[in-house]
Amino acid sequence: MNREKIRELLENVKAGKTGIDEALRALKSFPYKDLGYAKIDTHRDLRRGFPEVILCRGKTIEHIEKIVESLSPETDFIMATKADKAAYEAIRKVQKDAVYYETAHIVLIGKARRKKSTKTILVITAGTSDIPIAEEAVVTAEIMGNAVDRVYDIGVAGVHRLFDNSEKLFDANVIVVVAGMEGALASIIGGMVDSPVIAVPTSVGYGSSFEGLAALLSMLNCCAPGVVTVNIDNGFGAGYFASFINHMGEK
Amino acid sequence: MNREKIRELLENVKAGKTGIDEALRALKSFPYKDLGYAKIDTHRDLRRGFPEVILCRGKTIEHIEKIVESLSPETDFIMATKADKAAYEAIRKVQKDAVYYETAHIVLIGKARRKKSTKTILVITAGTSDIPIAEEAVVTAEIMGNAVDRVYDIGVAGVHRLFDNSEKLFDANVIVVVAGMEGALASIIGGMVDSPVIAVPTSVGYGSSFEGLAALLSMLNCCAPGVVTVNIDNGFGAGYFASFINHMGEK
Amino acid sequence: MNREKIRELLENVKAGKTGIDEALRALKSFPYKDLGYAKIDTHRDLRRGFPEVILCRGKTIEHIEKIVESLSPETDFIMATKADKAAYEAIRKVQKDAVYYETAHIVLIGKARRKKSTKTILVITAGTSDIPIAEEAVVTAEIMGNAVDRVYDIGVAGVHRLFDNSEKLFDANVIVVVAGMEGALASIIGGMVDSPVIAVPTSVGYGSSFEGLAALLSMLNCCAPGVVTVNIDNGFGAGYFASFINHMGEK
Amino acid sequence: MNREKIRELLENVKAGKTGIDEALRALKSFPYKDLGYAKIDTHRDLRRGFPEVILCRGKTIEHIEKIVESLSPETDFIMATKADKAAYEAIRKVQKDAVYYETAHIVLIGKARRKKSTKTILVITAGTSDIPIAEEAVVTAEIMGNAVDRVYDIGVAGVHRLFDNSEKLFDANVIVVVAGMEGALASIIGGMVDSPVIAVPTSVGYGSSFEGLAALLSMLNCCAPGVVTVNIDNGFGAGYFASFINHMGEK
Amino acid sequence: MNREKIRELLENVKAGKTGIDEALRALKSFPYKDLGYAKIDTHRDLRRGFPEVILCRGKTIEHIEKIVESLSPETDFIMATKADKAAYEAIRKVQKDAVYYETAHIVLIGKARRKKSTKTILVITAGTSDIPIAEEAVVTAEIMGNAVDRVYDIGVAGVHRLFDNSEKLFDANVIVVVAGMEGALASIIGGMVDSPVIAVPTSVGYGSSFEGLAALLSMLNCCAPGVVTVNIDNGFGAGYFASFINHMGEK
Amino acid sequence: MNREKIRELLENVKAGKTGIDEALRALKSFPYKDLGYAKIDTHRDLRRGFPEVILCRGKTIEHIEKIVESLSPETDFIMATKADKAAYEAIRKVQKDAVYYETAHIVLIGKARRKKSTKTILVITAGTSDIPIAEEAVVTAEIMGNAVDRVYDIGVAGVHRLFDNSEKLFDANVIVVVAGMEGALASIIGGMVDSPVIAVPTSVGYGSSFEGLAALLSMLNCCAPGVVTVNIDNGFGAGYFASFINHMGEK
Amino acid sequence: MNREKIRELLENVKAGKTGIDEALRALKSFPYKDLGYAKIDTHRDLRRGFPEVILCRGKTIEHIEKIVESLSPETDFIMATKADKAAYEAIRKVQKDAVYYETAHIVLIGKARRKKSTKTILVITAGTSDIPIAEEAVVTAEIMGNAVDRVYDIGVAGVHRLFDNSEKLFDANVIVVVAGMEGALASIIGGMVDSPVIAVPTSVGYGSSFEGLAALLSMLNCCAPGVVTVNIDNGFGAGYFASFINHMGEK
Amino acid sequence: MNREKIRELLENVKAGKTGIDEALRALKSFPYKDLGYAKIDTHRDLRRGFPEVILCRGKTIEHIEKIVESLSPETDFIMATKADKAAYEAIRKVQKDAVYYETAHIVLIGKARRKKSTKTILVITAGTSDIPIAEEAVVTAEIMGNAVDRVYDIGVAGVHRLFDNSEKLFDANVIVVVAGMEGALASIIGGMVDSPVIAVPTSVGYGSSFEGLAALLSMLNCCAPGVVTVNIDNGFGAGYFASFINHMGEK
Repeated sequence: MNREKIRELLENVKAGKTGIDEALRALKSFPYKDLGYAKIDTHRDLRRGFPEVILCRGKTIEHIEKIVESLSPETDFIMATKADKAAYEAIRKVQKDAVYYETAHIVLIGKARRKKSTKTILVITAGTSDIPIAEEAVVTAEIMGNAVDRVYDIGVAGVHRLFDNSEKLFDANVIVVVAGMEGALASIIGGMVDSPVIAVPTSVGYGSSFEGLAALLSMLNCCAPGVVTVNIDNGFGAGYFASFINHMGEK
Repeated sequence: MNREKIRELLENVKAGKTGIDEALRALKSFPYKDLGYAKIDTHRDLRRGFPEVILCRGKTIEHIEKIVESLSPETDFIMATKADKAAYEAIRKVQKDAVYYETAHIVLIGKARRKKSTKTILVITAGTSDIPIAEEAVVTAEIMGNAVDRVYDIGVAGVHRLFDNSEKLFDANVIVVVAGMEGALASIIGGMVDSPVIAVPTSVGYGSSFEGLAALLSMLNCCAPGVVTVNIDNGFGAGYFASFINHMGEK
Repeated sequence: MNREKIRELLENVKAGKTGIDEALRALKSFPYKDLGYAKIDTHRDLRRGFPEVILCRGKTIEHIEKIVESLSPETDFIMATKADKAAYEAIRKVQKDAVYYETAHIVLIGKARRKKSTKTILVITAGTSDIPIAEEAVVTAEIMGNAVDRVYDIGVAGVHRLFDNSEKLFDANVIVVVAGMEGALASIIGGMVDSPVIAVPTSVGYGSSFEGLAALLSMLNCCAPGVVTVNIDNGFGAGYFASFINHMGEK
Repeated sequence: MNREKIRELLENVKAGKTGIDEALRALKSFPYKDLGYAKIDTHRDLRRGFPEVILCRGKTIEHIEKIVESLSPETDFIMATKADKAAYEAIRKVQKDAVYYETAHIVLIGKARRKKSTKTILVITAGTSDIPIAEEAVVTAEIMGNAVDRVYDIGVAGVHRLFDNSEKLFDANVIVVVAGMEGALASIIGGMVDSPVIAVPTSVGYGSSFEGLAALLSMLNCCAPGVVTVNIDNGFGAGYFASFINHMGEK
Repeated sequence: MNREKIRELLENVKAGKTGIDEALRALKSFPYKDLGYAKIDTHRDLRRGFPEVILCRGKTIEHIEKIVESLSPETDFIMATKADKAAYEAIRKVQKDAVYYETAHIVLIGKARRKKSTKTILVITAGTSDIPIAEEAVVTAEIMGNAVDRVYDIGVAGVHRLFDNSEKLFDANVIVVVAGMEGALASIIGGMVDSPVIAVPTSVGYGSSFEGLAALLSMLNCCAPGVVTVNIDNGFGAGYFASFINHMGEK
Repeated sequence: MNREKIRELLENVKAGKTGIDEALRALKSFPYKDLGYAKIDTHRDLRRGFPEVILCRGKTIEHIEKIVESLSPETDFIMATKADKAAYEAIRKVQKDAVYYETAHIVLIGKARRKKSTKTILVITAGTSDIPIAEEAVVTAEIMGNAVDRVYDIGVAGVHRLFDNSEKLFDANVIVVVAGMEGALASIIGGMVDSPVIAVPTSVGYGSSFEGLAALLSMLNCCAPGVVTVNIDNGFGAGYFASFINHMGEK
Repeated sequence: MNREKIRELLENVKAGKTGIDEALRALKSFPYKDLGYAKIDTHRDLRRGFPEVILCRGKTIEHIEKIVESLSPETDFIMATKADKAAYEAIRKVQKDAVYYETAHIVLIGKARRKKSTKTILVITAGTSDIPIAEEAVVTAEIMGNAVDRVYDIGVAGVHRLFDNSEKLFDANVIVVVAGMEGALASIIGGMVDSPVIAVPTSVGYGSSFEGLAALLSMLNCCAPGVVTVNIDNGFGAGYFASFINHMGEK
Repeated sequence: MNREKIRELLENVKAGKTGIDEALRALKSFPYKDLGYAKIDTHRDLRRGFPEVILCRGKTIEHIEKIVESLSPETDFIMATKADKAAYEAIRKVQKDAVYYETAHIVLIGKARRKKSTKTILVITAGTSDIPIAEEAVVTAEIMGNAVDRVYDIGVAGVHRLFDNSEKLFDANVIVVVAGMEGALASIIGGMVDSPVIAVPTSVGYGSSFEGLAALLSMLNCCAPGVVTVNIDNGFGAGYFASFINHMGEK
């Protein structure tokens, strides 16, 4: 898929440096590690600018442990999301220096990316209960080399708290809004600011919030343009995308 | 059900003024008119403070016409909702002086209630497309003897329009918020004001608005207390309930 | 947002009493307490006539404890809803005199509002299983200074129980109907009474009750006007709104 | 499947009256007429006590016409449901004496069953808009030889209309309740009477009635026992089942 | 509501035997016991032919215990459904002779109704996992004085098992079909038999069975007439209704 | 992707017959025709054993016409599905010899594949209204070179019709079951036969069939193994897959 | 249903070898074992080519144990699916040599079918969390006598992993794709290969994956023909169907 | 909200240049035009970098006409989306030079923004039927000053079409993926590219696509990070957001 690599390969074939069977193998041997139960994309860092991330939810403790073990020799940087205490303990057995961001449910091995963006991502929550998902976004974005600011518990039931923080709102380069229940905060902020807003519905609420469905539909139907949505409780996805566009003007 | 009436009846039975069979009949002959296909509650005005209203939607033109015809001798006041042009024409054949509120889809025969409340109901819409449902609420409330104020197209994509009308917001005794799409306006207003808010989700929108479901769920999950919800597109219900509580302190 | 305060501020600016930067700060320093993970609206009491309420569900025990701790110096009145035993224990550690309404899952610190309304809110349940949500409404309304009456387990499977309590029904100023399963009770009562009805669907039931969805849809489609709906299991919201309108004629 | 027929067949095989291949064919040649696009069950009358009924909805006019044409020589009784005007016209081309029950959307050829049950089926509707489905039940039950009584437009918004008809309610042997919107009528009647209640949700309503879903869920969750439910708008099914049990004690 | 009782009352009032206030009280004092948290309908036996049944699900152990305790002096017959072990233990504390039908989750105090119907109710399940709900129907019907037959695990994946039991099928007066997953069994049996079929969808299955929704929709859309449906897992309702119609021809 | 082609290419590069840039272009120039609004896969016939098929639904008449026009020089075989009369007319303007299978809504240009499979695909419908979707499957399978047999209107309400056709059932190599409403036919047939069953839910039905959802869920939850499901109304997909496996043993 | 058996029976009846009542009994006594709570289809092996399989989910431990116990004398081959540890322990008590495929949740007693197909079934997963369902398909297919190949964790977030395994893809005779979340892998593979694809949605994911609904809908709407779908998490069904068609060309 | 404006205002108040009442008015008189039925945000261009856009869907022709008429003196640039022919005709009556992008359903008055971004937005569709929504995105982005490239009909059923366009894919700065049916294209592209992907589900499809729900859920559950979603059929929102981030690095 990488044009330059293919050209080089073809040139080597032409020059006789690379045999045809070898070339065929090369085209096949894209760099990943096959554990049978998992194929670890060891070079995604190069391709995508960020290494593959382990989603712990749904995986057995054994699988998580072995995936980390197998990744360790390849990279000095491993990130795991939706990791509960047990997942963290399993990882720490393999990697003593693993750090656990407890609220964010993220485990990190290795240093966060160094070069910080000069522009800020602002992560906002409607309520206190939305904080774990917000922290997932914050930690993700920080690891990916962003300056991140937090404004938590600013929900629409007390809009003046929002206006009090309006400076932060207007200064942010990218905004992540994390809200459960009716998710209205995304619309309000989307209508105020001049920067892209990534809305994260959360499963916070009860009754007809239907595990985040109310917030999700609300955010998708946001009448203010400039707002996009990710999956319910997907703090990682929001932080990742926010980092993506926060770095856009950089090169 | 009316304790005084039953007592009177029993006293008459005791006094021999009313025979037992007659009493039995009386208990049965609660005042309504039976058309076979419709039982018209001619005395609801007395019981509920407002006469029965004809919901045109789902009824044949013939039924609407005959119901109005049959009501005419009983009352000088008839109201029909969700009435399209054809329903209005049918009613006008029977009642020449029927008035058609075209945007509100309401037909009115007879005068609106006179005694106006001194307090105001404010009806707000998020967008221009929500106006028909809002007008249904406005006309209903006006007919029921309320001072009604309108603020239309104030949606969250331009919140400053909301704040500009904040005086009206704070002066209103009862507020009706009519919004489709994500329905966030109900939450914002619910968080600002000190008066009861009746939220009306509308089927305005497209895609995942799912004919008003997004707005409905959003309003039900409103994190600000003091907000209640009625059925999607039920402007009449909102106007009726608003009138109800707007008159509460009166006696 | 408070017109008088802004005018005063502007006058002070004009008079030179307040510097421009100070004025800007003042506009920002709306009164709330920022705990980072929570922004506590210490002055909501003034603005909304009732202090902010802590929704325990979804919050960690630590957050609940710290929010109460931080509120304590500011106010002599704190209310927490959807509080299980553990939440109550946490609060009692900070506030020895916290009272636990076990069935209602409400924790109260400080005295309930004194001035009782002369008019009564009636809270009705269809079944025995609806009582916890009904009590949430009752306790909320009582705390907010209302005379509250209860009629429990009056469901439609034995309508005569309803008629036996008809006097209470007709005497009530506001009615809260709490019902799960098919939620039909709201419709019946809505068709009988002359006072506003707030319907609370509950998640009581099984199978196709779908955790309260059947009752919710039933209540939203209530063919009797004068009925509004709140979220499934939202007893607090119903009690709050009922109190709202019960006090309406007072001033 | 008919034990006697199989025995006779086997006896004939034993007696040499019927050859084995003939017997095999006989077992196959169960009495129906194969039109290719339709297999008409000409003997269902014998087996089920009622001939096969043509559901017009979804069938082309051509198919309806040909099915009736093909049934005509076999039977003097044909019934078609959910038949619009065009379906009726098509049938009348083939069968001059076809009768059209316009409101019920039923076409009938031949006489209704003679022997009337001495007991009565009562068909009740909540509103005027529910009448077409109710008539489908009424006409079906009458054709099947039942005395049927109607009480229409008795909905819960004016319960006294219900009590006024309580004699009919208590006299009925079987009750069919037809209601859209919130469908609460089924619950109320189910809680009052001592006879089986068949609930028919209708697609009458708007907004969150979701084409009859609200009424369906309401009826399925009916807290009064003695109530069963059929598909939304399935008046025929209700009339058929009502007839079924109304004739139960007869033989 | 009881015409004769009212007539008697009126006659007594007329004759001076009953004072007016006493009469008013009588009209109100319909026989039930008010526990505050529960209103027990002690005379439902007379009115409905079967005493009120306690649905344990959703009730606290304390409430169940007290309801039974309070019913005990009034009746020698108490039935409780959806009762787990703990509910049974609580009841046994109050009533030593309570019998627990463990699979059916029913607790019974007192003797089942004596006079058995001569006709049989057949309860069929598609699979082994449907048995608890089927037993709920069986035990209910037996308690209500019916001869009940069982055919379990006859599901469509091996239809020959069905045909082997065809004699039972054709002999039954009423059939209850209990099935989860796709619920197809109700349709097949509905198409074969000449007796009324009550379909009970169960929450048995996984994935897109969506807790019984697939079976419920399947049964509601049954193309064979003569089939009605009750709520998911509502074995009691099916048994009750089956008993209802099984006794129909009796008087 | 084609290993042999890539090897040949590489060998040509090595041999100097193909320049590197030419090779790069070759890797890109996979054979399809780009119309801008459509990319027509002219060689799919080779790759997939069947040319690309035009799904008319959702396309404008203009697009359909131009796609056919552009395909014509490339192939002597074009197939279009979900084609209404207007789509057919448009195609006939371009291709005079286009054949319209009206019931199946398929347009065909060119001859059907010649070599017929010796084994038979049986397409069964529950009702007459399911025929259009069944015919879509039949015509597709016939065009793809299969012997196809039809058994229509065999629904579960008269199972004996099914057993009468049991020989066809047991002789078929692959069975396609097309059914709306409750879709139970798929389960019954799946439990009887020894050949793979492809279930096609249709949108036939009304009320809680919810446009085919009931049949879809029913088929997905089929308790008999050996049954797979395609999208609602996807007769083409079923015919295509049936042809797929009907030819499996052939080479 | 078995034509030959019936012919033989009829011939015996004719020859006087079999009496008529005996013949009737024979027609009824189709071979299965009736445990009351379960009817075990001991001869399904003959009819369907594979013995009946025990679905443990939803069954009590006692039922599972007894079903196995009762099957043991009849067959040397028993298979149980969705079996957790406890189910396995129960089975092992009865059958010492039961083998537990822990990841697949399958218990096997007896040898897998011997004659292996020469063609391969390929089972693919999108992620590591989909492996349990994939293993259910693998073990089922292996037991049924198929060569099975696995390619796990190949999800679309790193498509190159897919292309690296393209040889396996193109060599497979039948492909099973197991994927949760958005289920896109089925579409991609369906668009690439020339062999039938069986898609298995899994409940892997969170938020708006709604327990597998997102993957299910995605797979049903697959725009590539040649893809069919089974129930969410139904690895057994997929393995069974795959085996079905993998053996098709064999005789 | 504009800090500088408020500071200036305060400075003017301090300097006595602006009276206090005038200042209060100024704070209120945020620039928009009130038509009663619509409040037009004439200065949004300044605040948000783009003027307010008219969503025609749901608005009456009269309202659209009047809104355009009223906007005309204020701005030389007006954009209307979801505009059918009738809406366009109405606008052209008022503004002769209105341009209609027929496929995109967009009406434009005035010149598109001049300064083009040097980076490219790529808009991709899965099928031909998705083009109208894609064009809505394209035209929006072009009007907002972006270089836009199109790759249409590249759906997963023929992935090689995708790889052939890989250069465009890798060159794009932002990618918009428009797809109905199963929406898998978003996942594939999300897994390949290194740029942000905005996924637009469309209502293209039938059966269980449920008007775009399948595509929406698929996109939300996309396992590749770097993908965000907008509402079903919201081409404008996608184009707007794409433009937003495409300009990010510019200043």
